[in-house]
Amino acid sequence: MKKFIDEDFMLESVTAKVLYEKYAAGLPIIDYHCHINPKEIYEDLKYENITQVWLYGDHYKWRVMRASGIEERYITGDADDYEKFCKYAETLECCIGNPLYHWSHMELKKYFGYDGILSSETADKVWHLCNKVLREQPLSVRRIIEESNVEVICTTDDPTDSLIWHQKLKEDNYSVKVLPAWRPDQLVNIEKTAFAEYIKKLGEASGVNITDWYSLKDAIRKRIDYFDEKGCCVSDHGVAYIPYRRCSESELDRTLRNALEGQKISACEIESYKTEVLMFMASEYKKRDWVMQFHYGCDRNNNSRQFKILGPDTGYDCISNYAPSGKIVRFLDDVNLESGLPKTILYSLNPSDNAVIDSIIGSFQNSDAAGKIQHGSAWWFNDNKAGMEQQLISLASMGVLGKFVGMLTDSRSFLSYTRHDYFRRILCSLIGRWVDQGEYPKDDQMFEKIIRGICHDNAETYFGF
Amino acid sequence: MKKFIDEDFMLESVTAKVLYEKYAAGLPIIDYHCHINPKEIYEDLKYENITQVWLYGDHYKWRVMRASGIEERYITGDADDYEKFCKYAETLECCIGNPLYHWSHMELKKYFGYDGILSSETADKVWHLCNKVLREQPLSVRRIIEESNVEVICTTDDPTDSLIWHQKLKEDNYSVKVLPAWRPDQLVNIEKTAFAEYIKKLGEASGVNITDWYSLKDAIRKRIDYFDEKGCCVSDHGVAYIPYRRCSESELDRTLRNALEGQKISACEIESYKTEVLMFMASEYKKRDWVMQFHYGCDRNNNSRQFKILGPDTGYDCISNYAPSGKIVRFLDDVNLESGLPKTILYSLNPSDNAVIDSIIGSFQNSDAAGKIQHGSAWWFNDNKAGMEQQLISLASMGVLGKFVGMLTDSRSFLSYTRHDYFRRILCSLIGRWVDQGEYPKDDQMFEKIIRGICHDNAETYFGF
Amino acid sequence: MKKFIDEDFMLESVTAKVLYEKYAAGLPIIDYHCHINPKEIYEDLKYENITQVWLYGDHYKWRVMRASGIEERYITGDADDYEKFCKYAETLECCIGNPLYHWSHMELKKYFGYDGILSSETADKVWHLCNKVLREQPLSVRRIIEESNVEVICTTDDPTDSLIWHQKLKEDNYSVKVLPAWRPDQLVNIEKTAFAEYIKKLGEASGVNITDWYSLKDAIRKRIDYFDEKGCCVSDHGVAYIPYRRCSESELDRTLRNALEGQKISACEIESYKTEVLMFMASEYKKRDWVMQFHYGCDRNNNSRQFKILGPDTGYDCISNYAPSGKIVRFLDDVNLESGLPKTILYSLNPSDNAVIDSIIGSFQNSDAAGKIQHGSAWWFNDNKAGMEQQLISLASMGVLGKFVGMLTDSRSFLSYTRHDYFRRILCSLIGRWVDQGEYPKDDQMFEKIIRGICHDNAETYFGF
Repeated sequence: MKKFIDEDFMLESVTAKVLYEKYAAGLPIIDYHCHINPKEIYEDLKYENITQVWLYGDHYKWRVMRASGIEERYITGDADDYEKFCKYAETLECCIGNPLYHWSHMELKKYFGYDGILSSETADKVWHLCNKVLREQPLSVRRIIEESNVEVICTTDDPTDSLIWHQKLKEDNYSVKVLPAWRPDQLVNIEKTAFAEYIKKLGEASGVNITDWYSLKDAIRKRIDYFDEKGCCVSDHGVAYIPYRRCSESELDRTLRNALEGQKISACEIESYKTEVLMFMASEYKKRDWVMQFHYGCDRNNNSRQFKILGPDTGYDCISNYAPSGKIVRFLDDVNLESGLPKTILYSLNPSDNAVIDSIIGSFQNSDAAGKIQHGSAWWFNDNKAGMEQQLISLASMGVLGKFVGMLTDSRSFLSYTRHDYFRRILCSLIGRWVDQGEYPKDDQMFEKIIRGICHDNAETYFGF
Repeated sequence: MKKFIDEDFMLESVTAKVLYEKYAAGLPIIDYHCHINPKEIYEDLKYENITQVWLYGDHYKWRVMRASGIEERYITGDADDYEKFCKYAETLECCIGNPLYHWSHMELKKYFGYDGILSSETADKVWHLCNKVLREQPLSVRRIIEESNVEVICTTDDPTDSLIWHQKLKEDNYSVKVLPAWRPDQLVNIEKTAFAEYIKKLGEASGVNITDWYSLKDAIRKRIDYFDEKGCCVSDHGVAYIPYRRCSESELDRTLRNALEGQKISACEIESYKTEVLMFMASEYKKRDWVMQFHYGCDRNNNSRQFKILGPDTGYDCISNYAPSGKIVRFLDDVNLESGLPKTILYSLNPSDNAVIDSIIGSFQNSDAAGKIQHGSAWWFNDNKAGMEQQLISLASMGVLGKFVGMLTDSRSFLSYTRHDYFRRILCSLIGRWVDQGEYPKDDQMFEKIIRGICHDNAETYFGF
Repeated sequence: MKKFIDEDFMLESVTAKVLYEKYAAGLPIIDYHCHINPKEIYEDLKYENITQVWLYGDHYKWRVMRASGIEERYITGDADDYEKFCKYAETLECCIGNPLYHWSHMELKKYFGYDGILSSETADKVWHLCNKVLREQPLSVRRIIEESNVEVICTTDDPTDSLIWHQKLKEDNYSVKVLPAWRPDQLVNIEKTAFAEYIKKLGEASGVNITDWYSLKDAIRKRIDYFDEKGCCVSDHGVAYIPYRRCSESELDRTLRNALEGQKISACEIESYKTEVLMFMASEYKKRDWVMQFHYGCDRNNNSRQFKILGPDTGYDCISNYAPSGKIVRFLDDVNLESGLPKTILYSLNPSDNAVIDSIIGSFQNSDAAGKIQHGSAWWFNDNKAGMEQQLISLASMGVLGKFVGMLTDSRSFLSYTRHDYFRRILCSLIGRWVDQGEYPKDDQMFEKIIRGICHDNAETYFGF
C-alpha cells in the first residue's frame, strides 16, 4: 500500500517514477488555455484567507458541496469564510475517487507545505496554517506563478477587451509570458438577448460602425489584428455543438440586420449565422497562423432557479450528448476547401466522443504542422484520472500520441497549476505501463522526446511561443 | 491464481478483503427497487425444483440460452424442468465473463451450499442437491429473504393495485418491511391501444369518473395518497427517454379526451401528454417527499415474432441510444422551477450515458438531501463487474461517491439478493484499489462511513425507511 | 519489465501464456472478411521492396504519417520507396500506444526475422534486410499465406465481378480456400452519381435488362446465385447507418426508375430504397443460409480536397455518431417477420455502440445457429488492444463469449495476418485475467472449447466452410 499523496503519487510503477523524475517533473508549464484574470497578475493579488483563493469562484468545489447536501449559504451565501472552509473540508471526506480530493491535497502540499489530510477534524488547523502562509510569505498571485514554474499563460479574452493588463505586464517586463486569447462567443451567440448591445460595444472597440455583415467582418478583422499585435496566437470557441448550415452572404446579411434590429430569427438562421461567422474567423486565423480551439458538448446554466440568483459559471452546467460528427466533419472540410484549415484543437465535454474526435482529426492532418489537428486534453468533468487515461489511450490508439500538445488548466484559480503535475504523473504511469508490459521498447531517447514533447516542447512549437 | 468463487470472490486485494469483511459483509439489505411479487412473500411460496425458482421468468438466463443456440422448447417451451435445467447448465459453460456465471454460482453456494461448478457434467448432481434443499429445509420465499438478511423490500406496483398483499404482510407483523412502489407506466403510455381501458380501471380504483385531464389528475392524486398511506415513498418510471414538450392544460385536455375516445393522436401530442403527466406526478411526489426514479434508454419487445408468442418481459429488449440530454435537463429544470424537484434517481440503460447523467445530477443538487439527485446503480445489461465499476468511477469522478444510495436488485427472482453481495465486493475492491494506490488515505473512520453509507445507511436516510 | 515484443508479447500473465500456447497459437486462420485481391494470390505477386508490400495502399500508415506532419510526397507522392520507408520509420517512433507500432514489429519479426526496433536510426538496416528476404526467399503472396497458416480467405467482391480469379484458384487446386464475398454497396447507394451507370453494368453481368424494381430483383437474384455457385456464403454491407424507412413496391419502383433516368430523388426516397433493397437481399441470404454482415458508423472521404487528388480509401474516413438503435431494431425485426433473419454480424465503427449492439443481438437469437446474431470483432479504428478488450468484455457481459466467431483482418495487406495472432494474445490475456481473479474456474476442457472456438472452430461452423 502506498502512502497517500507521497512523492510517488499517481506513479503506479518504478518505471513510471523514473520516467516522471527524469523527463517530466522539472519542466516549466505552458498553460495555453485558462480563465485567470491578467489584472490579478499585474496587481499581484494577495489573499486574506484560504477560502478566498480556494472557494471563491471555484464551481467545481461548489458542485460537490451541493451534492453533499450542504446549504447554499455555506457555498455562495453569507456564511463567513471560516465556516465555508470547514464545510468544504467536511464535504471532501466523502469525495473518494474525485479529482478534487487529489487536487486539494496536492495544492495544500505544494503551496502551503501541509501534507496531512483535510477533513472536518483537521479543518481548523489547516485553516490557520494556510492563512499564515498567505499572510506571511505572502503567497501572492505572482509568487504562486513563480513557484509553479510557469513559462506561458494564455488568458481568455473578449474581442472588445482592451488587453490593458497584458500590455502593462509586458511593459513591466514580467518574466512570464501572459498572452491574450481570442474568445468571441458573444459575437457568435446571435440568439442571446444581449447580442445587439454586444455588437454595439464591438463597434466601439474596433472603431467600425457595424450595420451589416460586411462591416461586422471588418470589425472582427480589426480586433483580430489588435489581438495579434498583442501577442495572441490562439482562439477559443465555446459552442453547444459545432454548427453546420451554409447560407449565402446576402441571407447572412439579412439575418444579422434582423438580429441587430431586435427581430426574431429562426433556428435555421441562427445555425447559418454561427456557421458562417465561425468559418470567416477560421479563415482569418489561418492567415495569421493562429490556433483555433473548439470546446463543445456543453449545456450551460441548466438550473434556471439558481441562474437567476447566481448568474453563469456557478456550477450548473452539464454534458450535452447532441454533437453530430457529420456537422463537425463538414464544417472542417468546408473551411479546409475555402481558406485552408488553421491548426485546430477539438475538445468535447462528452467522453463518448473521444473516438469520434480521434478519427475526425486523422482526416485533416497534413504537413502544415506536426499534429496539426489535435484532440484536446480531457476537459472539465473529464479532467480526472479515468478521463485523462481514456483520452490518452484513445488518442494513442488512433493517432500519434507523441505529437500531442498536452495539458492546460482551463481554470479560474491560480492554485490549479498542480493539475499539470497531476497530468504528467498520469501520463508517465500510462507510458510506464506500456513499457513494463513490453508494448514499447525501453528507449531513453524516445522517452525524452515523447514525454518532454507532450509536457512542454510540442506546445511550444505548435503555438509558436 | 485465486480459487473460483471462494470467500474472496471479487475481492482483488488484501485491502479490499479487509474493507469488505469489516464494513460491508454483515450489513442488512435494503432492496429499494425490485419486481418480486408480494403475494409470493405473504404465501411463503415453495418450489418443487430449482428450475421453478431459477429459470421460470428469468429472461436474463433465457437470453444466454438463445444466444447459445438452445431450442426455445428448453427455454420457455414444453420441455420438462429437468431438461431445462440441464440446458442452462450446458449454456453456462460458455458464459465466461457474464455476470450470470457469477450470480448462478453465488446463489448455488449461498442458498444450496454447493460450491462446485455447474456444467453439463455436474448438472444432474446439482439438480438433485438443489431440489433436496428446496424440499427439505424447505427453502421457501420467506426463508430466502431471512437468510439474505433483508430489511426492506420495495416492490413495483401499478396505481390500480389494491396493495392487499402489502397490507396482509403488515397485519401479519412480518419482520421485513415490504413496501409498495408507484409505477404508473400504463397511465403515461397514452399511445398504447390499451390506454383507454386502463384509464377506466384507474377510474374504478380511485373512485373518480375520469373524463378529462382534470379528473385524471384527481384520480392520480387519490391513488398516490392511497399508496402513501400504505407506506409507499418511491415512484418509478420506465420510459424510452425522458420526454420534454410542454403544452397548455387545454391542449392536454383535448389530447386526453381524444385518446379516451380512441382517436389517433400525433407524436407531438403524445410527447406533450407524457411530459405534462410526469411533471404533474413529480409535483405530487415533491409534496409527499417521495423519491422519483427514471429508468430510461430502453426499447422493449423488439422481436415481434416472439412477442406474439411470449408477451412482454421475455428477453427481447435492448438499449436505445436516443435519449437527448437536453430534454432531461429541461424536464428537470421546469419541475424544479414549478414545483421544486423531488429527490430523483436517474438510470440509463446506455452505459455511454454515465458521464451525461453524472454531470446532469450535479446541476440540480441542493441541501434538501445529501445526494438529492442520484445516478442509479448500473442497471440491467450493465449490472455486471465492468458496468458497475464504470458507474462507480464516473459518479466518483464527477460527484460525491460517499453519498450514493447504492445497490438494488431490480429482479424478479428471490434468489438474486446475492447481487447486493456482488456489488459490495466490487465496491470494496474499487475503494481498496484507490487506497492501495495512495489515492485516498487509510482512514478506518472514513471507510466505515463511506462503505456502510453506500451499502446501507445512505438508502435508509434517503428514502426515510 | 517484459522485453519488447518477445514471445510473450501481449500475454500479461503466466495463465495467459499457457492458454495461448496450449490452445490458440497453433490454430489455422479463417479470415472471413478481408479486402485482398484474389488476382494477386493467383499470380503469386512478388515485391521489390518493403515499401511496396507495406506502404502502398495502407491508409492506416498514411494517417499516422500525416498526423506526424510528414509531407504528402513521402506518403502517396513521388518520393522514392526508400525515402517513404524512412519517413514511416521516423513516424513510428512517436506512435507509442498505437497498434501500428505493434503490428509493424510483429510483421518484421514474423516475415522478415527482424526482432529489433524500427526507428530513424535502424531504418536503413531494416530496409536492406527486408528487401533481401523479399528478393531471396522470395517472400511472395502465396508464401506469406502459407507461413501464416491460413485456411480460408473471404475476399470482398462487387456483384458484377466475374470471380475469374477465384475460379482459377479453384481449378489450380490451391490448398487455401479463397472464397468470394458479396459486397453490393454500389447497388444500394442510389444517391451516388454513378448509380445508373452501375446498374447498367449489373444488367450486363446478370444478363437482365434492368428497367425497374422487378428486373433489378431478378438481376440481384441471378448474381447471388452465381456467387453462391462460386462458394460465396457471406455478404457484407458498408453503410453510414442501418436504414429503416418502409415503402410499397410501387413507390420503390418509381424511385428506382427516377434514379435510373437521372432525376433527383429525395432523402426519404433514398432511405426507403436502401431499406427495401437491403431487406430483399436479406431474404435471399436467408434462403441460401448466407451470413449477412453490416459495417456501419462510418463517414467516408471527409477531406474533399484530398479526395479529388487521391480518391477513396486513402485515409480520410471517420466515425459517425449517427446510428439510431431504433432503426437497427426495426430493420432486423421486419426482416425476421417477413423472411426470417439470416445469420447476421453487426460491426459499428463507434465504440460507444458496443453495448447497444450486444443488447440488440440478444433480441434476435434463436436455435438456427449458436450465436446466430454476432457482434463483430473490434473494427478498423477500434482494432487495437483497448478496442478489442472493450468489445470482448461488452460481448461477454451481455452475451455468450464462447460462441463468438472471432477475428478477421479486414485488411488490404497480405502481411496483416499477424493481427489474428495479436487478437489471440489479447483474448488469452483477458481469459487468463478472469481465471487468475477467480471469476472463472481453471478448467482445461472449457478453455480448449472456448479458446479454440473463438479462434477457429466457431467461424468454421458458423459460416459452414
